[in-house]
Amino acid sequence: MNENEIDRLVFLMSKLPGFGKRSARRAVLHMINNKEKIMYPLAEAIQNTADNIKHCIFCGNFDVTEICKICSNHERIKNLVCVVENVGDLWSIERGKNFKGLYHVLGGTLSAIDGIGPENLNIESLFHKIDNQNLNEIILAINPTIEGQTTCHYLAEKLKLKNIKVTKLALGIPVGGELDYADDGTINEAFNSRSLFSIID
Amino acid sequence: MNENEIDRLVFLMSKLPGFGKRSARRAVLHMINNKEKIMYPLAEAIQNTADNIKHCIFCGNFDVTEICKICSNHERIKNLVCVVENVGDLWSIERGKNFKGLYHVLGGTLSAIDGIGPENLNIESLFHKIDNQNLNEIILAINPTIEGQTTCHYLAEKLKLKNIKVTKLALGIPVGGELDYADDGTINEAFNSRSLFSIID
Repeated sequence: MNENEIDRLVFLMSKLPGFGKRSARRAVLHMINNKEKIMYPLAEAIQNTADNIKHCIFCGNFDVTEICKICSNHERIKNLVCVVENVGDLWSIERGKNFKGLYHVLGGTLSAIDGIGPENLNIESLFHKIDNQNLNEIILAINPTIEGQTTCHYLAEKLKLKNIKVTKLALGIPVGGELDYADDGTINEAFNSRSLFSIID
Repeated sequence: MNENEIDRLVFLMSKLPGFGKRSARRAVLHMINNKEKIMYPLAEAIQNTADNIKHCIFCGNFDVTEICKICSNHERIKNLVCVVENVGDLWSIERGKNFKGLYHVLGGTLSAIDGIGPENLNIESLFHKIDNQNLNEIILAINPTIEGQTTCHYLAEKLKLKNIKVTKLALGIPVGGELDYADDGTINEAFNSRSLFSIID
């Protein structure tokens, strides 16, 4: 260990998303000032998680068990599968505490620029699931970016042959958002997908 | 290790300044996706730093050696001492790469509300330095907050008896800042401390 161990820690912290050099320094100082309550437990938690984390063999979620806590939960609806780009998106949907089905993590999107084709994503295993399990519905919860939409269309095209209900998330104005801040594409989608306003008597 | 180790890591990360629950989750995912390059080195760096860090016996800075790299640097001006509230402020001044003297970390400010008196700060050791080393100047680089100013006045009063030059940092408009965003106190200080505009021919 040399004199620059603190600098090295600051450097590593600054590689995390949301951190720059300056905020990393502040975080490291905060750790040092709270050695017993934060610094040691954090070192241990990172090490433990790194040692034990794995991809769930069914859905691709991260967990410390072979089968993640979502796939092993008997209360989840087994024949409803939500397809997401990555684990971060899966966690976002779980935060909503609304979706009760299972997931399938693609591991990215198709991208000609980055040379990512169907064979680089977990698409085969999705088709395998459809062929071998009695699925009711596939929800494509892929981000409405250009790559995401390309991936969606590719999947929808392939899934046509499988004779299974395929849905996608609604596009529109975010709850709590303002029209003034929404882009043209979002406003157009919201108009096209408008629904009847029903008044409850 | 139980199933919630990831949640525990997210919880600990969210305790760092600049992080909330959501950004902590994002950082943890980034770690997991970069296990070899970030996650393991980070666990090790935190553990190593926690094990080896100490306060410099001379100035109070954090380092992995008894005497910090600033105090042990022979090129620093030994009879010029800059008094700061905490190590974070010391690091901020070092970032400027301008100050060539030594530091003295008080460890906080006087605060009647929090019950912090002179005996809770490293003030005795500052006086001891002044009495035993041939110091030229003491720069009070204490934050211009109410507690900071109280501390400054207390120190300045005591230092009067020591017959030593005591200075404080200039107050004014930040470089790159705009008058419109500066508070009244700052504008007043900038007016009171205005200097002659000299044109170089």
